[in-house]
Amino acid sequence: MTTDTRETTIEADPRVPLVRITRRFAAPPAAVFRAHTEADLVVQWLGPRRNTMEIDYWDCRTGGSYRYEHVRGDDRFGFHGCFHEVRPTGLIVQTFTFEGYPDGVALERLVLEELPGGGTLLAATSLVDSFEARDGFLASGMEEGVREGYERLDEVLES
Amino acid sequence: MTTDTRETTIEADPRVPLVRITRRFAAPPAAVFRAHTEADLVVQWLGPRRNTMEIDYWDCRTGGSYRYEHVRGDDRFGFHGCFHEVRPTGLIVQTFTFEGYPDGVALERLVLEELPGGGTLLAATSLVDSFEARDGFLASGMEEGVREGYERLDEVLES
Repeated sequence: MTTDTRETTIEADPRVPLVRITRRFAAPPAAVFRAHTEADLVVQWLGPRRNTMEIDYWDCRTGGSYRYEHVRGDDRFGFHGCFHEVRPTGLIVQTFTFEGYPDGVALERLVLEELPGGGTLLAATSLVDSFEARDGFLASGMEEGVREGYERLDEVLES
Repeated sequence: MTTDTRETTIEADPRVPLVRITRRFAAPPAAVFRAHTEADLVVQWLGPRRNTMEIDYWDCRTGGSYRYEHVRGDDRFGFHGCFHEVRPTGLIVQTFTFEGYPDGVALERLVLEELPGGGTLLAATSLVDSFEARDGFLASGMEEGVREGYERLDEVLES
């Protein structure tokens, strides 16, 4: 029996405009946390494989902020936000805006918990202010990017 | 006829866990905006009269952050968050945590629009991730603090 299925689940909450993501990793929480906070690790996995990530700034601490671009051929997609709370090695609360839709903003919470046996359970939520915005986000193809990003994160953690 | 009623409306959204606040001010948006961004003005009005506000840090710009305490006799109440987006003179998007409930966080959006005649319509929303948290926030007595704070803001703007 293995509980390390490496399956990403992505669910739309029925009551509130929130997306809930869970994923297991073989690495311990401290390593998964570091891969989220250190810019030189983040660029190796965040987003789908066909994109290259270029960081404008990445100051992952309570009260810090970030901006980056995903580059695909001649296209560039900008994202930015601020870090509300960063508690090693189990919590990151941040905001998130895709600059193609500059008035949209999500409140994101990432929780890392140690699994029996030493792996990590990642539980992430993304909250927006309308069901229309949430469902549009789900329909945008974000699922593929999330799943592929976590596969790349497995590779970073195992390297 | 006057549209400058100075009445604060506070409404719970029926569909999403959000509070919506509106208030009119006689002053123009640029003045109301400055009273939200400049620390030496903010301390003069934010919160109920019986509290004194002490700012730990207040860096109201896109990517900045803040922390302050409200002091009432021997009691101190801490609050902190980050500024996701600050666009002069019409938009402030920020996070908000009351440190007495450190795992709670709200995403707040403030929009200032010029009214015909030169005043300002302030529209603020506060979004959390559950109806229970939202209704608890409304039941906490925040309404009195908001109403009284905006009366104090009138006084700051008229001084």
